[in-house]
Amino acid sequence: MATDRLENIVGLAKRRGFVYPSSEIYGGLRASWDYGPLGVELKNNVKRQWWKSMVTGREDVVGLDSCVILAKEVWEASGHVATFSDPLTECTSCHKRYRADHLLEAYEAKHKKAATSLTEVNCPACGNKGQFTEPKQFSGMLKTYLGPVEDESGLAFLRPETAQGIFINFDQVMTTSRKKPPFGIGQIGKSFRNEITPGNFIFRTREFEQMEMEFFVVPGTDEDWHQYWIDTRMAWYVDLGINPERLRIFEHPKEKLSHYSKRTADIEYKFEFAGTEWGELEGIANRTDFDLKAHSAASGKDLSYFDQEKNERWTPFVIEPAAGVDRATLTFLMDAFTEDEAPNSKGEMEKRAVLKLDYRLAPIKVAVLPLSRNADLSPKARDLAAQLRKNWSIDFDDAGAIGRRYRRQDEIGTPYCITVDFETLEDHAVTIRDRDTMSQERIALDQVEAWLAPRLLGC
Amino acid sequence: MATDRLENIVGLAKRRGFVYPSSEIYGGLRASWDYGPLGVELKNNVKRQWWKSMVTGREDVVGLDSCVILAKEVWEASGHVATFSDPLTECTSCHKRYRADHLLEAYEAKHKKAATSLTEVNCPACGNKGQFTEPKQFSGMLKTYLGPVEDESGLAFLRPETAQGIFINFDQVMTTSRKKPPFGIGQIGKSFRNEITPGNFIFRTREFEQMEMEFFVVPGTDEDWHQYWIDTRMAWYVDLGINPERLRIFEHPKEKLSHYSKRTADIEYKFEFAGTEWGELEGIANRTDFDLKAHSAASGKDLSYFDQEKNERWTPFVIEPAAGVDRATLTFLMDAFTEDEAPNSKGEMEKRAVLKLDYRLAPIKVAVLPLSRNADLSPKARDLAAQLRKNWSIDFDDAGAIGRRYRRQDEIGTPYCITVDFETLEDHAVTIRDRDTMSQERIALDQVEAWLAPRLLGC
Repeated sequence: MATDRLENIVGLAKRRGFVYPSSEIYGGLRASWDYGPLGVELKNNVKRQWWKSMVTGREDVVGLDSCVILAKEVWEASGHVATFSDPLTECTSCHKRYRADHLLEAYEAKHKKAATSLTEVNCPACGNKGQFTEPKQFSGMLKTYLGPVEDESGLAFLRPETAQGIFINFDQVMTTSRKKPPFGIGQIGKSFRNEITPGNFIFRTREFEQMEMEFFVVPGTDEDWHQYWIDTRMAWYVDLGINPERLRIFEHPKEKLSHYSKRTADIEYKFEFAGTEWGELEGIANRTDFDLKAHSAASGKDLSYFDQEKNERWTPFVIEPAAGVDRATLTFLMDAFTEDEAPNSKGEMEKRAVLKLDYRLAPIKVAVLPLSRNADLSPKARDLAAQLRKNWSIDFDDAGAIGRRYRRQDEIGTPYCITVDFETLEDHAVTIRDRDTMSQERIALDQVEAWLAPRLLGC
Repeated sequence: MATDRLENIVGLAKRRGFVYPSSEIYGGLRASWDYGPLGVELKNNVKRQWWKSMVTGREDVVGLDSCVILAKEVWEASGHVATFSDPLTECTSCHKRYRADHLLEAYEAKHKKAATSLTEVNCPACGNKGQFTEPKQFSGMLKTYLGPVEDESGLAFLRPETAQGIFINFDQVMTTSRKKPPFGIGQIGKSFRNEITPGNFIFRTREFEQMEMEFFVVPGTDEDWHQYWIDTRMAWYVDLGINPERLRIFEHPKEKLSHYSKRTADIEYKFEFAGTEWGELEGIANRTDFDLKAHSAASGKDLSYFDQEKNERWTPFVIEPAAGVDRATLTFLMDAFTEDEAPNSKGEMEKRAVLKLDYRLAPIKVAVLPLSRNADLSPKARDLAAQLRKNWSIDFDDAGAIGRRYRRQDEIGTPYCITVDFETLEDHAVTIRDRDTMSQERIALDQVEAWLAPRLLGC
């Protein structure tokens, strides 16, 4: 059942232009995906909602957009050069490569007990047991070389997280935007990781987009702020329609925390991928003062804050809600995917696939459908579509039976379908159909925009 | 004068949080820039206006978001591996490296005649004449390696343009979005080029963002469509406030066209950088059927179109308006930067710096300013700011004399300042000041949103 659901989504995503396998005409590039016309609108809507909720909608947060390629020293100071690596192993029988920790986790999930070593584990590809090489550490950062010669002097890294771009700009942003702790800096942008085992559609890819916010607080208030952000982020997903029963908080055990973290809580979604039920949707970490202190020490630039009221100098603690754009998009897609029943043209009930996306996320807000291809109806419908397109993302579809066109719009999550029919020529009104209830309402043509506006508020 | 203007912009950009030198606490990374709180809003607004005008606002264009790292074969087929390179030369006297073609162009601009060889040219750094090495071709693509071993099997390129991601998805997008030529596919995203001589602030950087649209047309209609897009794109800049006298069309001479192009016209802006007056803002090329045919031949996947009406198969021609997000942002900043006069608190006229940005591009739409820090005024002002923040990007500023606060908002291009004063407590009204005319209007508190809405339409 679980895998079926993912397969349904992947199939729908490809068929309707949400997400395609990348470079497919050349046989594809493993675990790389391109967003099609509907996918890019959905993804942009996710990002816009995040930005509104986390940056422009708040008095205490400002935005930033830093480079993908930063100075090498940034990654030395942050600890990424030394510690951002994974244990790589190879099955000597079939030469497939794996992350050793992933093999052990899968074993534990399946057998409900931990494996003490890789010798107990079967290769997921060839099935042979324990034929793995000794794991070797393998850097998770992608390298590149700037300048004409491929040597150490030009070596640079593609960022594996957007957060460091925020830390190194902390002082400039605070000064120029005239903020003081508690305040945050948010950023959306691409990151790159040399993943050994990417997979599960757009859940884990080498190239992905992050929505990260670093919130700088007075030391001692960090634990309260941490809880505040866990609650706030959880509420964001629920407000945008995610079923709360498929969300949970996972506390990272103390002994498995990252080197910078005092506490990390993940928001997990019940993806039900093969082999694993719950997957990380967003991580919310208390990064303490680790990063600011590390960059102060390495750069010689003092990144502490002078508190005029208390007349003392301290280094802010940092709470980081770090979400993945692609994971959030996948979650909204999976959670919205519903199968129910709708009447066909003969009035018989038939199965219907519908994406019950929140209207703010729906890639197309309104579809305009002339009942038939007719010299009188079509121009009226096109005029209406053109008028609405000034404000919203609009589809125009005049191909096929009206029932089939409704199904097409349901499947991509369009909240409202407007039918222009022969009566329209007489009464200057149209029928607006609601995606979820399938109820229909007759609205005067010159009232359509006013009818839609409050229903599409905040898009 | 010209250089002063750029220096003014760079200074303002840094001081007010539009654009900072990247990795500055580590001494900077040459020609890398991070966008601060105001810069990221301005840039997002530029992208949003492009997307509305070029994608969602049109019935004949859909969007896409393809990967930065595509299959290697893409860049072989497109011709980038073979031809995307620049002639690199080094001054043997001071060891500075240059693009030979840039040196020759600068010579020609200065001396009003072409140099026949580099032996006539002085080194811009040390001044010595003709001490240059024989130019060598140098790839403009940044490399990286996927997977655990740095060898040919994992070699990949960071895209130097977003366009190829569109061509390889042409057939899937056309099918799933049920379009047929003439129609377009638009995309916004980062590209990377291993520039030898980046410079002029955010005009030329290694890492930059593009807004590209590939418009697929019936062969034979390509020249008309090309002219249509040149005119449409020119009008876009003018509509968003660029002074048309600082814009011009530059026709690429036939002999200098790229290998794929039948005709290319650049929209140029009069940047007045040192050494050069006009700079490319956007290139609009007739790419013919070169790319689709090249990818068809290399991949074996037929990327032609079957025209049912004519019952024939043909490969569409492609018109490409390709704009740079960073260049457009720089242009809007430079063009909006104005110095005029405004009265100070004593009523004397003083110099004022004001960014006359179109309201759709302004990073902050409205600033709310309580006349003084007062237990009655502040909460009223904060409530108003919180209410407006639901729809727009809002600043709240209660520090310093009101005249200074107006200057701060003028300098960052905020169209409206709302002053909450002591009278507000009596008449429940506020003063709204217009950035450009500096005229003031008294508006009832409960009418502020309605007053602003039509003036901030389409933000």
